[in-house]
Amino acid sequence: MPRTYDYLREGAAIYARSFATIRAEASLERFTPDEERVAVRMIHACGMTSLADVLQFSPGAAVAGRAALKAGRPILCDSQMVAHGITRARLPADNRVLCTLNDPSVPALAQRIGNTRSAAAVELWLPHLAGALVAIGNAPTALFRLLELLEAGAPRPALVLGMPVGFVGAAESKEALIAATEQASIVVPGRLGGSAMAAAAINALASERE
Amino acid sequence: MPRTYDYLREGAAIYARSFATIRAEASLERFTPDEERVAVRMIHACGMTSLADVLQFSPGAAVAGRAALKAGRPILCDSQMVAHGITRARLPADNRVLCTLNDPSVPALAQRIGNTRSAAAVELWLPHLAGALVAIGNAPTALFRLLELLEAGAPRPALVLGMPVGFVGAAESKEALIAATEQASIVVPGRLGGSAMAAAAINALASERE
Repeated sequence: MPRTYDYLREGAAIYARSFATIRAEASLERFTPDEERVAVRMIHACGMTSLADVLQFSPGAAVAGRAALKAGRPILCDSQMVAHGITRARLPADNRVLCTLNDPSVPALAQRIGNTRSAAAVELWLPHLAGALVAIGNAPTALFRLLELLEAGAPRPALVLGMPVGFVGAAESKEALIAATEQASIVVPGRLGGSAMAAAAINALASERE
Repeated sequence: MPRTYDYLREGAAIYARSFATIRAEASLERFTPDEERVAVRMIHACGMTSLADVLQFSPGAAVAGRAALKAGRPILCDSQMVAHGITRARLPADNRVLCTLNDPSVPALAQRIGNTRSAAAVELWLPHLAGALVAIGNAPTALFRLLELLEAGAPRPALVLGMPVGFVGAAESKEALIAATEQASIVVPGRLGGSAMAAAAINALASERE
């Protein structure tokens, strides 16, 4: 008889036990109920309860994100990983999930504006930006370029998730987002971040179901 | 004149500075050159230099992974996020990247075997397992189910990346993988892990180019 392992094999039970563990261990007291659901789901995606100590919500950001999703606004993602981490069945209005990174016009546009492909892809968000949800989980240059477009008068998204990851520009771009206080935002400061966190935040805002 | 920000806008320069920062800060001395490239790229994907202190390679695992990719073996992924994080242009033999999670047979199969959809999707890997690369960045149940299939005599992959994330089964499934010493593996122990780390490890094994 081949060996089997003793482990929980039922998806709903795994989620329930995971979320209970997170709520028992993480410091979630400072969050509103909407923020708390976002924090818990992001911690679930990264395995780090310490995320609760650094995650930053601008006032009303979680409420604004939920409302925008319910209103059917699109979700603009800076990477295919973010787009593929969003659980379509949780979205309240069959919201469009858009990642323009692989658009055929992007390489030439990047050359022309003298920036990365990730930043060039953000230019293609302009027709969709008004009231949208922006989920940046990969590229600091995408976040910097978005902030530049907003300063130049681009339509304002309902919410920006500032969660690019890494060692060059990630911390700085997120500081710039926090400094842009007129923009609702949820931010993982410093080097930490990533597509899984950004997708988890969208998934949490999309539905109260856990 | 709208404000612009001062940031590095050239992809290659961003990579170079990121990798130099990682090599200056992380403790990489214990790794072989092949392992070091994997560690650096995984750190780049998660923003945490401390990953270098916990990442575990079985002897020869990095070499086995590189060889399997060069030999054109498929890459079996437990989530769409892992599959979409793999940079196709880096793959040395136009290797197939397979994620069976959304196969229409999976829900019924999960019911039948009394396990999660992630575990059921692993059953569909059987025709592709021999000599393949397995990249598990999401579901502990996928890793447990793979180990059970291997104990029951399934064809052995060349390399298993054990990087599921989370609070229920993640640490335990990775301990079980490390204990299965006949299987070459790269493991992020404990709760940490994720699709970005698993994809980064594949991307590092795929090409020496940084």
